Amino acid sequence: MKPLGTEQTLAFEEPLLLRSGASFGPYELKVETYGQLNDARSNAVLVCHALNASHHVAGLDAQGKLGWWDNLIGPGKALDTDRFFVIGVNNLGSCFGSTGPMHTNPATGRAWGGDFPLVCVEDWVAAQARVLDRLGVQRLAAVLGGSLGGMQALSWAMRLPERLAHCIAIATAPSLSAQNLAFNEVARNAIVSDPDFHGGHFYDQQTLPQAGLRVARMLGHITYLSDDVMESKFGRERGESNAFQIESYLRHQGDKFAGYFDANSYLLIQRALDQFDPAAEHGGDLTRAFQPARCKFLLASFSTDWRFSPARSREIVQALLDNGLEVSYAEIDAPHGHDAFLLDDPRYHGLLRHRFAQIAREVGA
Amino acid sequence: MKPLGTEQTLAFEEPLLLRSGASFGPYELKVETYGQLNDARSNAVLVCHALNASHHVAGLDAQGKLGWWDNLIGPGKALDTDRFFVIGVNNLGSCFGSTGPMHTNPATGRAWGGDFPLVCVEDWVAAQARVLDRLGVQRLAAVLGGSLGGMQALSWAMRLPERLAHCIAIATAPSLSAQNLAFNEVARNAIVSDPDFHGGHFYDQQTLPQAGLRVARMLGHITYLSDDVMESKFGRERGESNAFQIESYLRHQGDKFAGYFDANSYLLIQRALDQFDPAAEHGGDLTRAFQPARCKFLLASFSTDWRFSPARSREIVQALLDNGLEVSYAEIDAPHGHDAFLLDDPRYHGLLRHRFAQIAREVGA
Repeated sequence: MKPLGTEQTLAFEEPLLLRSGASFGPYELKVETYGQLNDARSNAVLVCHALNASHHVAGLDAQGKLGWWDNLIGPGKALDTDRFFVIGVNNLGSCFGSTGPMHTNPATGRAWGGDFPLVCVEDWVAAQARVLDRLGVQRLAAVLGGSLGGMQALSWAMRLPERLAHCIAIATAPSLSAQNLAFNEVARNAIVSDPDFHGGHFYDQQTLPQAGLRVARMLGHITYLSDDVMESKFGRERGESNAFQIESYLRHQGDKFAGYFDANSYLLIQRALDQFDPAAEHGGDLTRAFQPARCKFLLASFSTDWRFSPARSREIVQALLDNGLEVSYAEIDAPHGHDAFLLDDPRYHGLLRHRFAQIAREVGA
Repeated sequence: MKPLGTEQTLAFEEPLLLRSGASFGPYELKVETYGQLNDARSNAVLVCHALNASHHVAGLDAQGKLGWWDNLIGPGKALDTDRFFVIGVNNLGSCFGSTGPMHTNPATGRAWGGDFPLVCVEDWVAAQARVLDRLGVQRLAAVLGGSLGGMQALSWAMRLPERLAHCIAIATAPSLSAQNLAFNEVARNAIVSDPDFHGGHFYDQQTLPQAGLRVARMLGHITYLSDDVMESKFGRERGESNAFQIESYLRHQGDKFAGYFDANSYLLIQRALDQFDPAAEHGGDLTRAFQPARCKFLLASFSTDWRFSPARSREIVQALLDNGLEVSYAEIDAPHGHDAFLLDDPRYHGLLRHRFAQIAREVGA
């Protein structure tokens, strides 16, 4: 079957000036696009990914793998690729084809490993903007993202206000809480204390720090699910060899993840999450951080999300309202916790379908 | 300075029949007692410990270390050692002097390690009952415990109803939830995947699985604190070398713990927690599990405890009420999460002070 999207590798010769002050490049980014850019070049939607996803957002790819947001994006779906030109970008430092820690550091001739520069949400946004330049898109109909992807969408609205009409940020937060940081620190320790990690230089050691990565993912997974959904799905049920089913389930999730994800990318993306805090540049004032924003906003959160709780979305909504911006906000009563943003709750998808229909009318998609 | 308590090692020749069906012994238990058993032998209070504590509950020991519940127990304190004969027992399988995985398995001549038998809450209760026999205490004025210690107190009420007048169970649960089990599974994986663990036989390898134990403890620590208290204590503040303070704090907690606690004891005690589920023997009916109970109950939970939430205590209270038992229950509005049971919130300590004054009158202490 023909893939729904068109995958391409874009090479960027000019270095990217990173937020840390370092300059990085040349580099390559994997990009997948869906649908057609209309003549007015007004129907482009950028979809930003979270920790473990990629540019492959919808349909099957050449390997037969379904896109990570396929339930939302595609022909006739809430984000309709028959009307919109949808762009997925694998972020710099990730491990699905874009330049990352597993690629060669030209200064040393060996893989970057843990020496890959610190990359921030704002750097991804700058890199995504260059992708749009390359694709001939000056102004986006919308930027859409959930969780860490939502942070990118918010960052677009603050940093490149003239280049988007709508920002749609789902299950996100204006920064990590102390508890979020704490979980990340535990995951980081599990990875870096795995002797197969070799300080991030495991590529030339014929080893992979899979044990550490597995623990990190198991832990992450707990925070993606609500207490209630875990209870109703697994409770204290036992499976094979009398182990609790939740134990086998978590181990399975950890094994699967450790089999395909790169440990350095994990640490790098987690660090970007830790660092995201647009209010910090403005003395902790989120309202001032959003002052440059000009687009319309839709935010949604899920009642049982304890990773990025509704209260965190409300902080954002308040800051946007303080700036007199146009904001819609939905707090969706869903049992699934943070993971809900990837599921197809009908109220949630109905909300996005309605918003994209409105955007289509506005931009003539 | 003279220790407040009297520490002794009690040797038990006769094997203990464990819940698993295995028989274990001979074995030794470390015990510390405080105050004097009165002539009527009616003023004894057993204090049960949670994961990382011991028989040393109050005052300074010979090494100058303060007991883990010293803010509650001692002369003139809520549990007044001038009136009560207080007994602390280091549970079988723990690592503070009682027989545990670091001791020699007579069948092999090497340390038990991971081959130490599965020990359950009910086994600890049976072993504690033998300690009382040895100390000449037929009937306890009260059994007191928090968290896993609370499970032991509840188990006393169900299994040895004639041997206690009061059960005081703080911040506890009738079983672990799926989320509790999930966190334990992550901690377990961190420990057993540490190459220094050697399948639990690290004692004769000159290694310690400290990296894994550190990750386990860091994770545990997150679940002991409320989101709010972590936010107000640490927020996104940074300390030395620009690291977030919560990161340094957790690493410090992990290092400290990994320096004194035994990895096999950790796994063993965690497994006892996982297994505790008195309702399971009665088709999931907690009310039936409490049918044998005859004592009076005091339960307390803390509003921000998300490890063993107030809802879990309410399940117990309901089961006790269904049996027509006398129950007092306090849900204490405290910001500290699960850890609150070890802190000296005045309402909480006032509640226990009042209850022990009542018990003192009842038993003539």
